[in-house]
Amino acid sequence: MDHIPSLEDIHHAHQRIRPFIHRTPVLTSELIDRKAGCSLFFKCENFQKIGAFKMRGATNAVMSLPATKISRGVATHSSGNHAQALARAALNVGCKAYIVMPESAPEVKIRAVKDYGAEIFFCRSTQADREQTLRSVLNETNATFIHPYDDYDIIAGQATAAAELIEQTENLEVILAPVGGGGLLSGTCLSASYLKDDIVVIGAEPRGADDACRSLNSGMIHPSIDPQTIADGLLTSLSERTFGIIKDHVREIITVEDTAIVNAMRLVWERMKVLIEPSAAVPLAAVLTQPETFAQKRVGIILSGGNVDFDRLTDLKPEI
Amino acid sequence: MDHIPSLEDIHHAHQRIRPFIHRTPVLTSELIDRKAGCSLFFKCENFQKIGAFKMRGATNAVMSLPATKISRGVATHSSGNHAQALARAALNVGCKAYIVMPESAPEVKIRAVKDYGAEIFFCRSTQADREQTLRSVLNETNATFIHPYDDYDIIAGQATAAAELIEQTENLEVILAPVGGGGLLSGTCLSASYLKDDIVVIGAEPRGADDACRSLNSGMIHPSIDPQTIADGLLTSLSERTFGIIKDHVREIITVEDTAIVNAMRLVWERMKVLIEPSAAVPLAAVLTQPETFAQKRVGIILSGGNVDFDRLTDLKPEI
Repeated sequence: MDHIPSLEDIHHAHQRIRPFIHRTPVLTSELIDRKAGCSLFFKCENFQKIGAFKMRGATNAVMSLPATKISRGVATHSSGNHAQALARAALNVGCKAYIVMPESAPEVKIRAVKDYGAEIFFCRSTQADREQTLRSVLNETNATFIHPYDDYDIIAGQATAAAELIEQTENLEVILAPVGGGGLLSGTCLSASYLKDDIVVIGAEPRGADDACRSLNSGMIHPSIDPQTIADGLLTSLSERTFGIIKDHVREIITVEDTAIVNAMRLVWERMKVLIEPSAAVPLAAVLTQPETFAQKRVGIILSGGNVDFDRLTDLKPEI
Repeated sequence: MDHIPSLEDIHHAHQRIRPFIHRTPVLTSELIDRKAGCSLFFKCENFQKIGAFKMRGATNAVMSLPATKISRGVATHSSGNHAQALARAALNVGCKAYIVMPESAPEVKIRAVKDYGAEIFFCRSTQADREQTLRSVLNETNATFIHPYDDYDIIAGQATAAAELIEQTENLEVILAPVGGGGLLSGTCLSASYLKDDIVVIGAEPRGADDACRSLNSGMIHPSIDPQTIADGLLTSLSERTFGIIKDHVREIITVEDTAIVNAMRLVWERMKVLIEPSAAVPLAAVLTQPETFAQKRVGIILSGGNVDFDRLTDLKPEI
């Protein structure tokens, strides 16, 4: 798609991907509401296929390709949820997926991508080597590169999460989404502006990767340089397409410390019994860090994913 | 109640407790189904109020008391989910709760019980001291002792979990529940026999606390002596009332090793993004340990609770 997705584009994306995604539930917690001083509605994209909202955008992008391109396959570089999502989306339509991953990627993520039948090309973990490896894969295979977020079909797919949340929850006043490359946040902006234009959209970002906050404040893209945060899904920087939407629609981007992210994550784990990854805890951390912005409001939060790396996070090994 | 609960008793219990409990969802996982070779329907009592099915029984027991007894309060000894459930149930009806807990109970559980406004009496962690402390509390307060499972009102309350599961899932062929004292399993037996009597009910038990298996096989109660298992909700032994029901209805009790319990727990965490405590993983461990019993069947599993002690299980402290 060569234009900012319209409401109709988002509807079409939703129809297209519906057989391959879950309509995820919206959960609430009295205890967290009391702590936050507002009414929170958690859209559980951690329960989405492949464990993250990325399945929506990747599915829409793959299914929007013409048949000739599908037959040559799709490619991307990612060590995260976009890699799994693209691999799974390609499997769903019977097309090949080529994924460039750093050698240092966790074994569990490599295995997940392989399980979906994708072909993996390893690279060193520098940005230069990633891009070089991807270029040679594209040359070799003639596959179509699917960018994780600088792509209007991806953005239209991610927009369906907020569209569902708005349908599932009455009288939302605010929606918060985490921001890395901005695919989810820009899609959220579009759905909110088309479906209920009085909803305030707020981004939430780790302080150690605050390129979106700086970009929004200055009016031009400032990429992250050496970002450091436990929220490993939010290391990427805004792109032209995502920033173009975000700057027109997002009221504010709240940045939070890693300590606040971990505390918010543990609160969701302990009180809602729902597993989220650190990146997904960033919006709740923003609410708890800056409660006056949300006082008494009805606030939607997109829990973006649940792919926690347990071997990093727990003592508990399968062998007792 | 002085008799084995009838279908009508269970219906009444359900009506009574409905305003105070969640009708918890039933979740499924394609991946776990493939691994298990059957269709699994997980009744998520980990999402229940206080994080466990115990809320059902405790609420029914408290609400079934005559007004004169409610005015004097309720008491129990427990360091686990029954303590929280009774404290919360008492709070709901505005009655006092006195909870005897070992001094060694985790701080988080002590805090939870206090947060519900209950009064705590600490004892040493021997059975003798627990009972002695409870007796003196009962003498002092005139409160009514609510046993965690040897009580037909408790059993009727726990039975409502399986009743919902049967309503929510078509054509169930088997239901599995974990067994400690037997409150959940005996309630499950009653609901299954009244509502769909061709459902096979199977218990699942840690090998290190296999009193129910030994009791069922021999036809008489064999209490656990020094039980050892990670499934800390299942250390108690069957009682007269629970065994009386279980021996007539349960087809089999499958015992599983702690390694299998941890693997099953991690599978649910990782694949369903849902937090369960070790005791709740015992039925899935049983299915994966003895798959031939369940091959191709439609199997309901009660995920009994989600009160994981993170400080025991993870490296991840709130302070980074």
